[in-house]
Amino acid sequence: MPLTNEAVRTRTETMLQSLQNTICQSLETIDGTNFHEEIWTRAGGGGGITRVLQNGNVFEKAGVSTSTISGLLSKDAAQTAGIGNGNFTGDNIPFFITSISLIIHPHNPFVPSTHAHYRYSEQGDSTTPGSWSFSGSADLTPYYLFEEDAINFHRLHKEACDRYNPAFYPRFKQACDEYFYLPHRKEHRGIGGIFLGNLNEYDSDMLYALTTSCATAFLPAYLPIVERRKDLPFTEQHQRWQRQRRGRYVEFNLTYDRGTAFGLKTGGRVESILMSLPPVAGWEYDYHPEASSEEARLMEVLQKPRQWV
Amino acid sequence: MPLTNEAVRTRTETMLQSLQNTICQSLETIDGTNFHEEIWTRAGGGGGITRVLQNGNVFEKAGVSTSTISGLLSKDAAQTAGIGNGNFTGDNIPFFITSISLIIHPHNPFVPSTHAHYRYSEQGDSTTPGSWSFSGSADLTPYYLFEEDAINFHRLHKEACDRYNPAFYPRFKQACDEYFYLPHRKEHRGIGGIFLGNLNEYDSDMLYALTTSCATAFLPAYLPIVERRKDLPFTEQHQRWQRQRRGRYVEFNLTYDRGTAFGLKTGGRVESILMSLPPVAGWEYDYHPEASSEEARLMEVLQKPRQWV
Repeated sequence: MPLTNEAVRTRTETMLQSLQNTICQSLETIDGTNFHEEIWTRAGGGGGITRVLQNGNVFEKAGVSTSTISGLLSKDAAQTAGIGNGNFTGDNIPFFITSISLIIHPHNPFVPSTHAHYRYSEQGDSTTPGSWSFSGSADLTPYYLFEEDAINFHRLHKEACDRYNPAFYPRFKQACDEYFYLPHRKEHRGIGGIFLGNLNEYDSDMLYALTTSCATAFLPAYLPIVERRKDLPFTEQHQRWQRQRRGRYVEFNLTYDRGTAFGLKTGGRVESILMSLPPVAGWEYDYHPEASSEEARLMEVLQKPRQWV
Repeated sequence: MPLTNEAVRTRTETMLQSLQNTICQSLETIDGTNFHEEIWTRAGGGGGITRVLQNGNVFEKAGVSTSTISGLLSKDAAQTAGIGNGNFTGDNIPFFITSISLIIHPHNPFVPSTHAHYRYSEQGDSTTPGSWSFSGSADLTPYYLFEEDAINFHRLHKEACDRYNPAFYPRFKQACDEYFYLPHRKEHRGIGGIFLGNLNEYDSDMLYALTTSCATAFLPAYLPIVERRKDLPFTEQHQRWQRQRRGRYVEFNLTYDRGTAFGLKTGGRVESILMSLPPVAGWEYDYHPEASSEEARLMEVLQKPRQWV
């Protein structure tokens, strides 16, 4: 007998909060400083746990947050969120979302920034096809390209997907390349990862397991990269490039990211939604890396995504 | 006999380019370094002159650009631009825009950033009411509040409007406060200025003269502020606050500004459109100025616009 919606809600929320604890502890260990926590409630229903570590030894800004919110959505907001089957009528659509969101901006320009988000959501009557789904994504945004780092990040996420279906990773990898893309720059945000968009064509048990598997892959996919790169010496010139690339990160999040737009439209907590923005970003006019430089080598993979595994 | 559309186009373009020269020369004199110029053409029709001064002695990033573009617009792009009467059918709407855009981000946190934009545009058949208009805006974005600076900026723009109609300044001042507003932050971008939205309810001669008057007021409204503040000593703490406020500037331009959205949608030159973004901006999580600090004093006027003259 399949689980009730309520049971799926509860176990997903529990899994995500447990993962939040594990990830925060690991990041605190590597950084040597602690997250600051804020627990908030949402006027329309629900709330969340926002954890932020700023100006640490390794991480300049890291946020690992969970939230569980519910209530009624306007059709417009439901479509912005990209949740559900889109066949909504009226402006009082019941919804439920439990999610984890994390973003990490390290100091050292040789350590990539990274982001992950996983969620279970219901909308509308929450029983007909398309009215509940699992979603998620994880992607890596390096400032300098180390191929072994990109391979590690993709390999671990591929293994997390392959356990359930070998067709998943190629599909999610391509969806990730397509989503984290800045059309006006003709650049991808980073070297990709996976993007699971509104999955509901399998049974809920399998999708819960798949989501758990992918979300759990985040730490082994990312931490070894931090360990390898965090003590590499860098110059002001490397930081200047890091600021420029972080400018692109801001452009993506404020212009294209559905989660950001959804959060702002539904009256979410602004500081939690914009937690993703880098501590410092730059826009020098018409800045182009020199030909054959390390910076230019990164641009090649941002302009033309590669198969990493 | 009224001027032909062609004559209005030509004299407005000439006036704006002449103003571009005057403004650049004045900024070069005060800075001691020169603008770098790029002349570009647009595939769909027209082109522009982009001038940027970076890392000067006074200005960290200043852009003063003119462009004259024409061609066919999609209905969607025409609405994004907010031009014309909006009664468009079909997706091949003829348009013409000649404009000046300037943005100045000084190094010293005690010197405000500023922005101005003036334009003449035609759309659709360009003769029926609402199918041509003059528009523009100028606003001041201080990081620290000096009341005499805000007063100077508003007074000069008020005088430029009062020559034509005493009802103009109050109306344009209010429209400016409404436009440069970040709903998710419940903050205005700066201490305002004037906003002339699609004016066409007067004859073209008068609107040309009004636009010229307002655009010409920019230098005397802004330069004395630069002269007064550019050599004030400042600390890293003042710059930290400047970075945070510049983050809000980025949020406004990427999330709400119609000109930015229009430029990106119509395949404009990305570097010219995003020239407005500050050289460096910051997002520290949940950063709040201390009570009764100079930073808090600024926030008061950003949250509740004042009458300056």
